[in-house]
Amino acid sequence: MRLPEASNQNGEVAALMRELGRRARAAARRLGATTGAQRDEALRAIAAALRARSDAILAANRQDLDEARAAGQNAAYLDRLALDESRLAAIAEAVAGIAALPDPVGRVLASWTQPNGLFFERVATPLGVVAVIFESRPNVTADAGALCLKSGNVAILRAGSDSFRTSTEIAAAMQDGLAASGLPRDAIQLVPSRDRAAVGEILAGLGGNVDVVVPRGGKSLVARVQSDARVPVFAHLDGNCHVYVHAAADLAMAGEILLNAKLRRTGVCGAAETLLVDEACAATHLKPLLAALLDAGCAVRGDAACQAADSRVAPASEEDWGTEYLDRIIAAKVVPGLDAAIDHVERYGSHHTDAIVTGDEAAAQRFLAEVDSAIVLHNASTQFADGGEFGFGAEIGIATGRMHARGPVGVEQLCSFKYRVHGRGQTRP
Amino acid sequence: MRLPEASNQNGEVAALMRELGRRARAAARRLGATTGAQRDEALRAIAAALRARSDAILAANRQDLDEARAAGQNAAYLDRLALDESRLAAIAEAVAGIAALPDPVGRVLASWTQPNGLFFERVATPLGVVAVIFESRPNVTADAGALCLKSGNVAILRAGSDSFRTSTEIAAAMQDGLAASGLPRDAIQLVPSRDRAAVGEILAGLGGNVDVVVPRGGKSLVARVQSDARVPVFAHLDGNCHVYVHAAADLAMAGEILLNAKLRRTGVCGAAETLLVDEACAATHLKPLLAALLDAGCAVRGDAACQAADSRVAPASEEDWGTEYLDRIIAAKVVPGLDAAIDHVERYGSHHTDAIVTGDEAAAQRFLAEVDSAIVLHNASTQFADGGEFGFGAEIGIATGRMHARGPVGVEQLCSFKYRVHGRGQTRP
Repeated sequence: MRLPEASNQNGEVAALMRELGRRARAAARRLGATTGAQRDEALRAIAAALRARSDAILAANRQDLDEARAAGQNAAYLDRLALDESRLAAIAEAVAGIAALPDPVGRVLASWTQPNGLFFERVATPLGVVAVIFESRPNVTADAGALCLKSGNVAILRAGSDSFRTSTEIAAAMQDGLAASGLPRDAIQLVPSRDRAAVGEILAGLGGNVDVVVPRGGKSLVARVQSDARVPVFAHLDGNCHVYVHAAADLAMAGEILLNAKLRRTGVCGAAETLLVDEACAATHLKPLLAALLDAGCAVRGDAACQAADSRVAPASEEDWGTEYLDRIIAAKVVPGLDAAIDHVERYGSHHTDAIVTGDEAAAQRFLAEVDSAIVLHNASTQFADGGEFGFGAEIGIATGRMHARGPVGVEQLCSFKYRVHGRGQTRP
Repeated sequence: MRLPEASNQNGEVAALMRELGRRARAAARRLGATTGAQRDEALRAIAAALRARSDAILAANRQDLDEARAAGQNAAYLDRLALDESRLAAIAEAVAGIAALPDPVGRVLASWTQPNGLFFERVATPLGVVAVIFESRPNVTADAGALCLKSGNVAILRAGSDSFRTSTEIAAAMQDGLAASGLPRDAIQLVPSRDRAAVGEILAGLGGNVDVVVPRGGKSLVARVQSDARVPVFAHLDGNCHVYVHAAADLAMAGEILLNAKLRRTGVCGAAETLLVDEACAATHLKPLLAALLDAGCAVRGDAACQAADSRVAPASEEDWGTEYLDRIIAAKVVPGLDAAIDHVERYGSHHTDAIVTGDEAAAQRFLAEVDSAIVLHNASTQFADGGEFGFGAEIGIATGRMHARGPVGVEQLCSFKYRVHGRGQTRP
C-alpha cells in the first residue's frame, strides 16, 4: 500500500479536512434518519467485513510494525500496535457486541403534560459528529467507529502515524459494512493523511462540523487536545485515585480493596495512587496495610507516621500527593479524620475516581457527597472505573469534566436530546 | 454611590478577576455541602433582603437611569433598565418562587445493580461556577443568581455598564441574604468593575474557575461570547423559527398557531420568522393564511406563489430565509412537500424551535424526528419555547448547542452528575 504524501502545505490539509467535515455533517443528517435496527445491521456487516478482510488488515499491520521497529519503538509499543488473527477476531466480536446493546437513540428521557394539555417529551438524539484522535492501538478505529455508529453519530477518526496503514484497512472494511447496509460510507471516516496539521484542524472544529473531540492516548496528547480544542472534549488528563481507610473500616476488606485498587493493573486510570489511613485506626490498620503493599512488591512513599510504621517506607515529598504513578508505587498518609481525608482528595486529586472503606454509613455518605469526583465508591475497588464494569457494554473513554458526560463515556453519553412537544392547536396566551 | 475607577491596566483587572474566580471555587465547595433546605432558606432570605433594601436599590437605579439618559439611550433601552416598587417586588417574588421549586441537586437520575452486587447511582450534582454576562436588565442579577444558588452553583455576574449601580445594590442584598442564612457571601459575586477587560478574563475561564458561561443580551454579546469563550457556553445566537403548514393541516388551527407564533410577541427568540406552506394545500390555505398575517399588520416577504396569492406580499430574497426579524415581518414560501420543508428548515434554520401543523401523525413524526432543533412542536405555537411554559419554573436562557443543555436551561440543566457506587468489599477480577 502506498501512503499518501505527507503535505507541509497547511492549506492543502485544511482544505482536505474542511471537505471531510462537510461530508461528515451531511452523513450525520442521513444517520439521524436511520433506525436502531438499520445501524445494528450495519454494525454486524462491519463485523463481517472485518473478518472477511483480515488478510489485508494483517498485511497492513505487518508493514506498520516493520516501520515502527525500524524507527526503534520499544517492545511495549510494538505490542500495542500488533494485530494477529485472534486479536482481529476479538475486534470484530466487540463490534458485534456493540450491535447487541440497547439502542441509545430515541429513548424518552422524560415526559410530562402541562396544564394546557401540551405533552412534552425529552428524547435522546445523536450528538452529531464525534472526532476521535488516537495513537498506536489500531483497535480504537473499530471500537470508536462502532460506538459512534451505534449512537447515531458520525465518526471522524484520526489514527496515530504508526498505525496508519492498519487503521486505513480497518476503516475501509467498516465503510464496506456501512455501504452493504445502505448507510453512508462517510459515517465513519479516517483522516486520509498522516500530516500533523490535520489534528489542529480537528481541534479548531472543521468549520462547525465537529461536535466533540475524544483523545485516546497518552497524557501529552490529552493535554494538547484539552488546551487547544475550540470544541468540547471528553477526556481525563490524570487518574490520581485515592483509597481512604476510615476509622470504621474492616481491616481485611480494606486490605483486599487496597491491593486490588493499586496492583490489579497499575497502568489503568482507575488504579489507586494514594492511600489515606484514618488516625483513629492507624494503630491497628496502618502497619498491616503497608506491609501488604510492600510484600506484594509495591513501593510506598509515606509521611512520618507511615515511615515509623514500616522501615521500608520511603519519605513522600509534596509532589507525591499529586502524582499519578501508573506503576508499582503508592503514596501513603495518615489523616486526622474524614474532613481531612476529603480535603486531601479535593486538594490533590484529579476528580476521577476515589473510594472510602468504612462500616460507618454516615461517614460513607459524607465522603460520597463531598468528594467531587466523577466516580466515588464505598467499599469497592477504584479499578471498577470502567464502562464495562458499569454495565455500559463499552466506553469510548472516561471523562472528568463536569459538562455533558462524566465518568465512563458509553453510547448513552454520546447522545444529546431534543424536546418533542405535541399539541392540539395550543397557542400561548 | 461612588463607582470604582475604570482601569485600563489589564493586569489589575486580571488579578482582580483571578481572585474572584478563586473565591468562587472555594464557595462552590462549601455550597456543594449544603442541603436543598439551606439553599431555599437563603433564597427566601434574599427575597426578604431585596424587599428590605428597596430604597437603596431604587436610588441606585435612578442614578443609572440619569446616566443612561444623559448618554442618549432610547426609550426602549431606558425601560429595560428602569425599576420601580412593583418591578422590584416582582423580582423578589421570582426569587421566592425559585425557592419553591423542587431541589434539582441529589436527584437519582438512574440506579442499577451489577451481577457482582455493586449498586450504582447516577446522582445530580451542581456544575460548579456559572458566569452570567448580561446587559441592561438589572433583574438578571437576581434571577440568574437565584437559579444558580438553587442548583448549588456559584454565580459570577457581570452586569452591563449601564445597570452597574443597580446590579451592585441587588447583589449586595443577595449577599446579605446568603450571610443571614450562614451561606458564603462569595456564592453570588458581581464583578466589581465596569472595565470591559473583565469579560475577556471570564471568557478565558479565570484559571479553570468557570465551568460555563451564559450570555444574556443582544446578538453581538452572544456572538462575542460564542467566538471567544474557552469554556462551555449555554446560548443561542438566532431564533429563526419556522411554522410549516402541512398538506393535512386544519386551516383554522394553522391560522391561529401562525398568528400566535409570529405576532404574540415579535421580539422573543421563539417568534416564528418563516412560514412554509405545503403545495398540496396551498390552493385552499395559502391565501387566507397570508391575508390573516397582512390584515394583522405583519409584512410578508414571499416567493412567487405567495406574491401571486396576495398582491401585498413583497418579494423575498435569499437572505430573508435566514433572517431573524424580531419584528412584524415574516418570510413565506410554498414547498413541494414534507421533505422539502425539512430540507428548508435544516438549511436556513437555527436549530432553535420549529413547528409543523398537520392532522397526519406520520408526517408529524417525521418532522419531529428529522428536524434537528432543540424544540420541535406538532400543532402548537413556537412561542411556547420558554422554560416557564415547559414547567421548569424559570430559565437562565435557551441553548441551541448539542452539549449538556439544549432548549430552555432551567435548574435541572444547571446540574452535572456523578456516580456513587456502593459495595461490600468487591474487588475487580
